[in-house]
Amino acid sequence: MRIDKRQPDEMRPVEIVPGFLATAEGSALISVGHTKVLCAATVEETVPAFLRGSGKGWVTAEYSMLPRATQQRTPREVNKGRPSGRTLEIQRLIGRSLRAVIDLRALGERTVTLDCDVIQADGGTRTAAVTGACVALAIALGQLVKFGAVPKSPLRELVAATSVGIVDGEPLLDLCYEEDSRADVDMNLVMTDSGQFVEVQATAEQHPFGDDRLASMVSLARAGIARLVEAQKEAAGL
Amino acid sequence: MRIDKRQPDEMRPVEIVPGFLATAEGSALISVGHTKVLCAATVEETVPAFLRGSGKGWVTAEYSMLPRATQQRTPREVNKGRPSGRTLEIQRLIGRSLRAVIDLRALGERTVTLDCDVIQADGGTRTAAVTGACVALAIALGQLVKFGAVPKSPLRELVAATSVGIVDGEPLLDLCYEEDSRADVDMNLVMTDSGQFVEVQATAEQHPFGDDRLASMVSLARAGIARLVEAQKEAAGL
Amino acid sequence: MRIDKRQPDEMRPVEIVPGFLATAEGSALISVGHTKVLCAATVEETVPAFLRGSGKGWVTAEYSMLPRATQQRTPREVNKGRPSGRTLEIQRLIGRSLRAVIDLRALGERTVTLDCDVIQADGGTRTAAVTGACVALAIALGQLVKFGAVPKSPLRELVAATSVGIVDGEPLLDLCYEEDSRADVDMNLVMTDSGQFVEVQATAEQHPFGDDRLASMVSLARAGIARLVEAQKEAAGL
Amino acid sequence: MRIDKRQPDEMRPVEIVPGFLATAEGSALISVGHTKVLCAATVEETVPAFLRGSGKGWVTAEYSMLPRATQQRTPREVNKGRPSGRTLEIQRLIGRSLRAVIDLRALGERTVTLDCDVIQADGGTRTAAVTGACVALAIALGQLVKFGAVPKSPLRELVAATSVGIVDGEPLLDLCYEEDSRADVDMNLVMTDSGQFVEVQATAEQHPFGDDRLASMVSLARAGIARLVEAQKEAAGL
Amino acid sequence: MRIDKRQPDEMRPVEIVPGFLATAEGSALISVGHTKVLCAATVEETVPAFLRGSGKGWVTAEYSMLPRATQQRTPREVNKGRPSGRTLEIQRLIGRSLRAVIDLRALGERTVTLDCDVIQADGGTRTAAVTGACVALAIALGQLVKFGAVPKSPLRELVAATSVGIVDGEPLLDLCYEEDSRADVDMNLVMTDSGQFVEVQATAEQHPFGDDRLASMVSLARAGIARLVEAQKEAAGL
Amino acid sequence: MRIDKRQPDEMRPVEIVPGFLATAEGSALISVGHTKVLCAATVEETVPAFLRGSGKGWVTAEYSMLPRATQQRTPREVNKGRPSGRTLEIQRLIGRSLRAVIDLRALGERTVTLDCDVIQADGGTRTAAVTGACVALAIALGQLVKFGAVPKSPLRELVAATSVGIVDGEPLLDLCYEEDSRADVDMNLVMTDSGQFVEVQATAEQHPFGDDRLASMVSLARAGIARLVEAQKEAAGL
Repeated sequence: MRIDKRQPDEMRPVEIVPGFLATAEGSALISVGHTKVLCAATVEETVPAFLRGSGKGWVTAEYSMLPRATQQRTPREVNKGRPSGRTLEIQRLIGRSLRAVIDLRALGERTVTLDCDVIQADGGTRTAAVTGACVALAIALGQLVKFGAVPKSPLRELVAATSVGIVDGEPLLDLCYEEDSRADVDMNLVMTDSGQFVEVQATAEQHPFGDDRLASMVSLARAGIARLVEAQKEAAGL
Repeated sequence: MRIDKRQPDEMRPVEIVPGFLATAEGSALISVGHTKVLCAATVEETVPAFLRGSGKGWVTAEYSMLPRATQQRTPREVNKGRPSGRTLEIQRLIGRSLRAVIDLRALGERTVTLDCDVIQADGGTRTAAVTGACVALAIALGQLVKFGAVPKSPLRELVAATSVGIVDGEPLLDLCYEEDSRADVDMNLVMTDSGQFVEVQATAEQHPFGDDRLASMVSLARAGIARLVEAQKEAAGL
Repeated sequence: MRIDKRQPDEMRPVEIVPGFLATAEGSALISVGHTKVLCAATVEETVPAFLRGSGKGWVTAEYSMLPRATQQRTPREVNKGRPSGRTLEIQRLIGRSLRAVIDLRALGERTVTLDCDVIQADGGTRTAAVTGACVALAIALGQLVKFGAVPKSPLRELVAATSVGIVDGEPLLDLCYEEDSRADVDMNLVMTDSGQFVEVQATAEQHPFGDDRLASMVSLARAGIARLVEAQKEAAGL
Repeated sequence: MRIDKRQPDEMRPVEIVPGFLATAEGSALISVGHTKVLCAATVEETVPAFLRGSGKGWVTAEYSMLPRATQQRTPREVNKGRPSGRTLEIQRLIGRSLRAVIDLRALGERTVTLDCDVIQADGGTRTAAVTGACVALAIALGQLVKFGAVPKSPLRELVAATSVGIVDGEPLLDLCYEEDSRADVDMNLVMTDSGQFVEVQATAEQHPFGDDRLASMVSLARAGIARLVEAQKEAAGL
Repeated sequence: MRIDKRQPDEMRPVEIVPGFLATAEGSALISVGHTKVLCAATVEETVPAFLRGSGKGWVTAEYSMLPRATQQRTPREVNKGRPSGRTLEIQRLIGRSLRAVIDLRALGERTVTLDCDVIQADGGTRTAAVTGACVALAIALGQLVKFGAVPKSPLRELVAATSVGIVDGEPLLDLCYEEDSRADVDMNLVMTDSGQFVEVQATAEQHPFGDDRLASMVSLARAGIARLVEAQKEAAGL
Repeated sequence: MRIDKRQPDEMRPVEIVPGFLATAEGSALISVGHTKVLCAATVEETVPAFLRGSGKGWVTAEYSMLPRATQQRTPREVNKGRPSGRTLEIQRLIGRSLRAVIDLRALGERTVTLDCDVIQADGGTRTAAVTGACVALAIALGQLVKFGAVPKSPLRELVAATSVGIVDGEPLLDLCYEEDSRADVDMNLVMTDSGQFVEVQATAEQHPFGDDRLASMVSLARAGIARLVEAQKEAAGL
């Protein structure tokens, strides 16, 4: 039995509140268990230098945690003068994941920035961020359609993410913080609505693993992601 | 008539949700009109070097805005490598305001850090931060009493803050962003529960002002702060 | 009796040496007691991005202390990689104070930068900087008139500043360092030649204060600023 | 046919020169085709703060590219003031990979730092760095055994890495730069001598992929890594 | 004839005002022509980590220019986040020069920091800084003797510096800014009171030079430094 | 007898491998005893802002040491956020030395950047860098001639550098690290093929020195540089 009484293949409760912010073109507050991430989409009529004149747009992401998202206060990265390696790695992951399902040419020379700010953290913040950011992006792109800037949404399909891991020798879906910190293998999967892989990241801490473990983790994640996509569709009104 | 149909001496609706975060010793989400600030208190059993061995504690604050708190996205300060002058000025103000009503000796060699993160901004974020942080602080100190760390709360009295300004020649209470950006004089007042001044900051943009204007702004602020203190007491259960 | 034998309403000796630097368009070395600040004005034919094409100019300030301005050596901020919050707060104050008395449209698309470098510090460095910078500015603008760049000086009136405080329960004018470090309330006032307020900043350290204290501090400051304006006029030849 | 005339399942020529540096406890210059990485191991009798007193050691890595490792000069990261996100991500990967095959308790309270500096880059620099660093580590640990600091090498088994990708719809082993920049899917695998996974990282650029693609890429990589382990054993004299 | 009507072997007027600052243990304001440098010595009862427990002291220097020391305003280095290469090079030169004439063992475990701040610049600021700093150092060490901290001054002899150069094919002593910017060869010499070399730095810009030029520049400098040492002795009361 | 059995006027073995990198326009790996520096030249069709439109080119250099170039690991400067003063000083020296022998007008509006990365360090890294960089520069300029970008090489003559010092009272040529760390006087000389001085830098550590010492060090260096120029000519095929 897991610490929060879940089955090995059971996700935590998922809630996605669309339009949480009055200020942003698209936004969503996603809760996965006690993990809460506020995702906001900003559309700007400009692109990075390497895309100017290409007719193509760009999607990028930034990630941060409020200091008291965690049980112990985490010092702000601004006071160290730079984002940590972990932060940079996560925001690169979110950006890549979203770009994999966007038709950048259909977006036109626009940049969409997804700000993912963790309000409360209990494991799986990066995967919740991918899942919530996709909803904020879908809403913002819907606005572009509504105002006639693009004929149809450049979002090809939805993308969502979850974590799986091997804890005490057993594969578990959607690790909470306590499980994550004891896991022998930690894996994050990003998949599309249609069940294709966008990102596969598995890391063995001290215990390398074999093909069978890889297969069972992928299988657990696939089921979880299907659940997340349902929540996304409902939130985004798709 | 003001842009949001208020009277000159009328504050925006105030709401304070205590205990918003499961992770922090004390927390409060304060809304003043569309301005929303999440305040979290962290108690640590340590003090800055200049207080070690003094028997006295410390109260400090950090302030930040999420990028899409504003209508136009504001770039994260972490990417510039340092907090801006505005941010440093605000967090110094919050810290000083709270220290003015705390018995630092009764606190003992502990530091309380108040993290004030603006979720949505429509003017008056620094004054909302002072008001909300005082509630988070009161709750965290209540926890110290409950667990026997201190015999009674080191908080002498509550402190709250509001803004006033001269707009189109008329003194107005609690400026929203649109009013603030047109104001000839902009003033922030921090006062105690008992009506004493903690901070007085008035700035003339292009139009210096006389004693009468100073007096009428102080008078407007005093009434507004009384309203805020009521909301604080209710939220903190005092 | 005060530590340097002054009366409560007595300022320290004030001296302003105009044209101290051969290199700058305008400069002044101001001494207020042992506090000495070198102020230099630089006029550049450019404006910040937000003013380009507006027909309006800009006035800004930078502030710094030499390491041995103080009794204990203060490490240089360049070695920490950034100006401190205190420095940023002070240079924002100086810039705002001067902009309040300048006709930025009459200045045209030019920027005047006031460099205020503290050579020796004994309290009141920010107020001495405002007072000295106004003289350097007046001289530099006089040069613009002389060379026909503007028909008349865009300086509407002079601006000067002093500190007041409550020490051992008594309001005192123009605090020296020793008094400042013991003050219950510390106030800086910036006023125009005609006696209007430009900035009012009062801070209670541990002891909040009432309306009567505010009034008596304002009254002391007003008299001191009148004295400073006389010294400014003499130095600037107005 | 590939650009360099290889078969899809053919690796580039691999050469590992052990002991390239006279200065380091262990070192290796690895060449994989035109990619050359100099790996140096440093053993220090200290551990990071979080391990002090734990009896356990630590293995970490740093990664950098010389500016002219690339066809176009790449500016030095030191001049931007910080390592890029890509650099941090790679050095975290190298460190994790090596820690997965080390008995940190048997290492004792020592830190081994692996410096991986890319002399010439033609794709696959991070996987070459993992492979070369493992040889430098094995040599340095051999020195510890030789000087009696530890009874036997704390290295449980070797670890090596290669890249695979889908280019023009075809799975290819060991991508050179030109192939990597055209790949639809880019995957890095880190595996042990015994064929277990340590890290699995697959990323779809624009084209999500299915289970079959994942399986064929893993299979290609497994064969390549077996080749690399042979070269490692020869170089390290195991 | 030189721009300021000097002979080739003629120095600019030199003035050294000892004790310019009331705040520092030793200080001197040195003027060499229009170049003015304020030098302040700070004595601290501590040494850098590499000297702790060695019984030896340390002498170090910091150098900076006020923004309007120059005809065109020079931006402050603090706003770039770091001292420039030029600044670091100069402060290393000043520190080395002074350490060459100090008995660091006789100083005991103390650090003397020499702050050299250029108030006005017209060429030769680094050599004026060496010359002025030596006076500030001598005064501060005299204070140590006076208060019984050391039996006699650890200063073995005085050190002073000047520049020479080849301008339009002619060797000139003590270059002003205008000459320095046109010089084919630029040389700085630091010598002791007894005429020994401490630092010799000569740089050819575009025109390499021969032994005869080197000899004539050294000879000019030697005469100039003798003059500076006289001014130092008078200022330091030696 | 010296530690490595050389005569006082004997250089260490010198080897220069031209074209070490396949990626760069010009490159050379220079070994002077155990010191090895990899030098790479990059030609770019742009110049710094201060030269735009001048018809003149620029030559600049960057210098760095790999962490395990040294017997004790040296932390990477990128992790401190900035190049050290020593690094900046060295790269300024290399750039100046090369510019002294280049006809910048004949180069046209191009920048050549010389990257000098120390692979292994045993004293004299800066002088080896100057010597090796000159070969890389000569090769890169030869490419410009070959491709018709310039009619003939803008390199007027070769430039090379070595160190000399006074160790235990005796002048020695080409100091290794162990000698350098014991030297009373440390001198670096940069000279042209035709025996003219480009840079002369001598520093006394604790022991100021006289004219005779200066003369004997210059004489030793002159002989050593003649040897280096021979090796350069052979490597560059001149």
